[in-house]
Amino acid sequence: MPPRKKPKVVEPSLPAASLYHLVVDTVTPELDGGRYPAKRVTGDVLRVGANVFKDGHELLSAHVLFKGPGDAEWSAEPMTYSPELDRWFASVALDRVGRWRYTVEGWTDRFGTWRSELKKKHDAGQDFELELREGSAMVREAMGRMRFGSLRATLEQTAAMIVADHDAPIDHRVHRALEEELALLMQRHHAPADVTRYSRELTLVVDRDRARTGAWYEFFPRSLGAGGRHGTFDDAAAFMPRVAGMGFDVVYLPPIHPIGTQFRKGRNNSLTPTKADVGSPWAIGSAEGGHDAIHPELGDDASFRRFVQRANELGIEVALDYALQCSPDHPWVREHPDWFHIRPDGSIQYAENPPKKYQDIFPINFWCEDRIALWNACRDVLLHWVQRGVRIFRVDNPHTKPSAFWEWVIREVQDRDPGVVFFAEAFTKPNKMQNLGKLGFTMSYTYFTWKNDPRELREYMEELTAGEMVEYYRGNLFTNTPDILNEYLVDGGVPAFRIRLVLAATLLPLYGIYSGYELAENVPVKPGSEEYMDSEKYELKSRDWNATPNITSDVVLLNRLRREEPALRAYGNLVFGESENSRVLCYVKQGLGAQGLGEWGTTHSRIGEVLEGAHIIVAVNCDPHGAQESTVTVPLEAMGMGADESYGVTDLLTGAHYTWRGARNYVRLDPAVQVAHVFRVERTAATTATATADPSLRSG
Amino acid sequence: MPPRKKPKVVEPSLPAASLYHLVVDTVTPELDGGRYPAKRVTGDVLRVGANVFKDGHELLSAHVLFKGPGDAEWSAEPMTYSPELDRWFASVALDRVGRWRYTVEGWTDRFGTWRSELKKKHDAGQDFELELREGSAMVREAMGRMRFGSLRATLEQTAAMIVADHDAPIDHRVHRALEEELALLMQRHHAPADVTRYSRELTLVVDRDRARTGAWYEFFPRSLGAGGRHGTFDDAAAFMPRVAGMGFDVVYLPPIHPIGTQFRKGRNNSLTPTKADVGSPWAIGSAEGGHDAIHPELGDDASFRRFVQRANELGIEVALDYALQCSPDHPWVREHPDWFHIRPDGSIQYAENPPKKYQDIFPINFWCEDRIALWNACRDVLLHWVQRGVRIFRVDNPHTKPSAFWEWVIREVQDRDPGVVFFAEAFTKPNKMQNLGKLGFTMSYTYFTWKNDPRELREYMEELTAGEMVEYYRGNLFTNTPDILNEYLVDGGVPAFRIRLVLAATLLPLYGIYSGYELAENVPVKPGSEEYMDSEKYELKSRDWNATPNITSDVVLLNRLRREEPALRAYGNLVFGESENSRVLCYVKQGLGAQGLGEWGTTHSRIGEVLEGAHIIVAVNCDPHGAQESTVTVPLEAMGMGADESYGVTDLLTGAHYTWRGARNYVRLDPAVQVAHVFRVERTAATTATATADPSLRSG
Repeated sequence: MPPRKKPKVVEPSLPAASLYHLVVDTVTPELDGGRYPAKRVTGDVLRVGANVFKDGHELLSAHVLFKGPGDAEWSAEPMTYSPELDRWFASVALDRVGRWRYTVEGWTDRFGTWRSELKKKHDAGQDFELELREGSAMVREAMGRMRFGSLRATLEQTAAMIVADHDAPIDHRVHRALEEELALLMQRHHAPADVTRYSRELTLVVDRDRARTGAWYEFFPRSLGAGGRHGTFDDAAAFMPRVAGMGFDVVYLPPIHPIGTQFRKGRNNSLTPTKADVGSPWAIGSAEGGHDAIHPELGDDASFRRFVQRANELGIEVALDYALQCSPDHPWVREHPDWFHIRPDGSIQYAENPPKKYQDIFPINFWCEDRIALWNACRDVLLHWVQRGVRIFRVDNPHTKPSAFWEWVIREVQDRDPGVVFFAEAFTKPNKMQNLGKLGFTMSYTYFTWKNDPRELREYMEELTAGEMVEYYRGNLFTNTPDILNEYLVDGGVPAFRIRLVLAATLLPLYGIYSGYELAENVPVKPGSEEYMDSEKYELKSRDWNATPNITSDVVLLNRLRREEPALRAYGNLVFGESENSRVLCYVKQGLGAQGLGEWGTTHSRIGEVLEGAHIIVAVNCDPHGAQESTVTVPLEAMGMGADESYGVTDLLTGAHYTWRGARNYVRLDPAVQVAHVFRVERTAATTATATADPSLRSG
Repeated sequence: MPPRKKPKVVEPSLPAASLYHLVVDTVTPELDGGRYPAKRVTGDVLRVGANVFKDGHELLSAHVLFKGPGDAEWSAEPMTYSPELDRWFASVALDRVGRWRYTVEGWTDRFGTWRSELKKKHDAGQDFELELREGSAMVREAMGRMRFGSLRATLEQTAAMIVADHDAPIDHRVHRALEEELALLMQRHHAPADVTRYSRELTLVVDRDRARTGAWYEFFPRSLGAGGRHGTFDDAAAFMPRVAGMGFDVVYLPPIHPIGTQFRKGRNNSLTPTKADVGSPWAIGSAEGGHDAIHPELGDDASFRRFVQRANELGIEVALDYALQCSPDHPWVREHPDWFHIRPDGSIQYAENPPKKYQDIFPINFWCEDRIALWNACRDVLLHWVQRGVRIFRVDNPHTKPSAFWEWVIREVQDRDPGVVFFAEAFTKPNKMQNLGKLGFTMSYTYFTWKNDPRELREYMEELTAGEMVEYYRGNLFTNTPDILNEYLVDGGVPAFRIRLVLAATLLPLYGIYSGYELAENVPVKPGSEEYMDSEKYELKSRDWNATPNITSDVVLLNRLRREEPALRAYGNLVFGESENSRVLCYVKQGLGAQGLGEWGTTHSRIGEVLEGAHIIVAVNCDPHGAQESTVTVPLEAMGMGADESYGVTDLLTGAHYTWRGARNYVRLDPAVQVAHVFRVERTAATTATATADPSLRSG
């Protein structure tokens, strides 16, 4: 990094725009002109690209300036020029969670240019006495910026020696002028006069790994009581070994707060509950407390802490629901009626979408007069649970609350603990879902449950992983939720459950299931409805985990493979192959030696993830009703493999081994037996030698 | 446009970002986060798109705010919502040349939402007494903003009538509340509380038509003298009827200034000129003056003005060369040696690219201490010629001068006369050429001369017209220049000249030829060189305009067709077809009824040009050496035509008429006879009826 001058004072008769010496623009990554940050996780590298140029033939230099969280000063990473792309690039190692800043500077390498031209003139036998004098002046300039010492003396001597009034022979003088060491010294100490900085400083959000990788399990603690009793956090703690045994990383709990009684919903969403009905956990708040309280039947602060501790001991993190709405019994309604929408008769407006009414819920008026206190209270709810070890929040319906609130509150919390993860439960139009990702949500639900046609699924996954969305939107592929039982599962039965599980667990590193999926529960409340019959949202649900049908062993195996195979834990490494049979979907999760992701290749995905381990080829029969065969075309080029290469593939689901050659290969999948292949690619020593920098990184 | 409130005061404990009520973003067109303006011409419409949304179900409104040149206040154009794209759009008619500003605002249509919900409740038979009170309050609010008068009285009466304490029957009250007139009144007078403006104001440069359409002819006036005499402006004036007869719109003259004598170049760029050698016009400046002077042998200010006047009378505009470099004899060298690079011995640095030396040229030091005076002087050169009626400048080698200078000087001149056109003669890397377009050049030279392979030509033309470049970069397709005689012309002879002429004249609305092209001059100075033998750059060149070979009649015909066919005068309406024979290129210039250009279709191109007249189908045999036949696939869908439609095509080059059916049709082109078809599509009355809104617009 060269020493730097302060920016020049702007002269009145030339506008500021006319004082840039170089053009430094089209910096990547950049979202919406710098309005929103891109996202990475620790361990990634941030690959920054920029156009840097000026008029004429002079040599240029450029670097990325970056500040990690808490850094007061910029650090610099030199950029290198790519002649093919006519752009400059540098990679910054991201070693800390938090908000990073970056921008780009370029300048003329005046000494380097001088040196190169001197050499050309010398080689051409032209006169260069004036050049030596100009070089000497530059060396003196650099010297003037140094403390007294041996380096300064060296430069002083050099400056004197290379000019004509020194009596050294001309060849010695040129030799000295062209010395590599002098070039390096000048690079460090010669201040460029024309440093030009990109017009914007950009922000990057660096999350912890759990923000981009994880297998989630959603369950209702209240359903875990033995013999129809209301479950508690202690029951939930006792349940954790089973969840850990299935290999999950995160458990997500619906709201754990006191449940309102006014307009409480009964079984199957009825408006006529009995006294015994437990109500919906999303009707938050009662005389017993609001968003920072615990439903007494679940336990208390101490038992909640015990539950979190037990989960953590087993390597599981606890995610809570953050649903900003209040039942009519919520303490806020009494204490701060002005935080709600007040009607002309003084009553509080309940939720409605005329002619539908949702009288058990009062929406919050985020733009009320007292909004500063309100927003702070909403933030403090999050901080309350953060203090209790909760660092992941699944945010209920964020698209029904102001974007400005989310941008503010996520920042408020992450400024205190940048490792806190926000998971947006928004099912709405693409633009709004994308915007929630841009303004701060760490990860998001997706349209995955509705993408059951292989062609549509591929198109959607490419939108998530191969376009601009990969920079800021991380999809978490839930197979089902308490609100979404897709018709495909209803219609396809157990094979459908197995198909969707393999897809969710292997397409992206973030996926989840809602309790009961492992039992293939698929009875809708009525034909065509996505609501479950006897939905757990409104009642306790006792389950026999050993019941049949049962696909728990599928879950265990897939979660194990995700831990063993690094390629299944990366996000931006998904490349689709072709399939002659449109019911069969074929894709690759790239491992070490991948290629074809733009400027990258071999070691990093397009978002700077380190790629390691073997390539994984997945072929899925998306037809739950019958066997399908197909010739699939594997995207060998994206795997850095030759078109005619032979390679072994081991099916990690069955252990079967095949030898494949080239891109086109045959598969047959009968869903009654096996819905998918998940192949690990094993290349022979000869073929991997060139592509695999460090074979020890390969798994298997 | 609703009345507007001032933005709310920012409360200290919530950051400014948290005060936006709606999300208003991804506004288009926008280049590099608003850093650079998009371009249009008068008569176009600016189609503005934006994402506008908020939480919840309320109805929204949005408008584009725009200021034409000189407007002190914003005007507003309501936007409409596109459900397919989930975006808002409005079109602004561009009726004036200059710099326009635009941005987008969105807000909640609170009264509209209330009205719609009231209606739903009314229809569902629900109680809505409270709704009427809320509506009444809104009406009173609007009333409070109005002057006393009949409208105010109407609102007052309405507000009173619709609430319960009025004794009107409920149906009357609802009827009054839902009246269309009330909705319109409220739209005008009810101030939204949550107007949110896009975070950036964007700039649009609107040029005059000549900035995007025109046939150019380059010639050296000095070559026009009779009997080997040095030509004059009077000779040039006398030459204008010939140029007008060929149908050109613009004549471009190499520099007309006094030519330096020191290190003057001789014939064929020799370094040993004789006394008689006239020198290169680009070696600007002598004792007789600099960039604002006229070479005495060409004439004087009066004869130059006569020449310009004569050209204008014939409908031709004069473009001058703006080459910012000085011969050693230039007055600036004597008066302002500090405007150049001064070497340690006090000499001025001549141009060089070691080991090459260009001693007849001193480059200007744009970053010298006295740069304010220097930049102003450079600007004043332009203003000098603008005063003499020159409003187009072909800028020599802009990529060798600072980008900052161009951004400044173009703005300085266009602030005084926004109709001044700057044409960048930069042949360098794509990023730099694109940047010159972004920072202000009206139009640019292209790589056209080097794109002779049909596949490469198509790819390049699609880059220019179908990607982001179409927003800011207008290619002017010169077939040749005094510096560029492409090998394709050397090798292909007359057929090659005819092929390249048709391509240049029909692919884009801007094209040009350099004098001698019509005589198929193609002798290079040595094999493989792009320099002409006996280049006009260094000597007078007397031509016999009636010599053979001669393709003047091709030029006349193509320029006539460009005037007759509106589709040939549009830029963003180029769509390629397919051709089974890779030597044949097929494309369509869309006319009225076009489709498939994104959000547009039928009446406007993707950059807001009005599309009119017939579609033009062009098929060119790019092989100058032999006949080629092909089945071409016409992009009928982009023409808004049915896949099985029958249509007439009249070859405008020959008058031949054919009936085609569907997309696939046969062509055979023998370059000895005819190098191309330029077909006007003639649809039958029955088929055009639906697509052609106004048949009178169709030419022919």
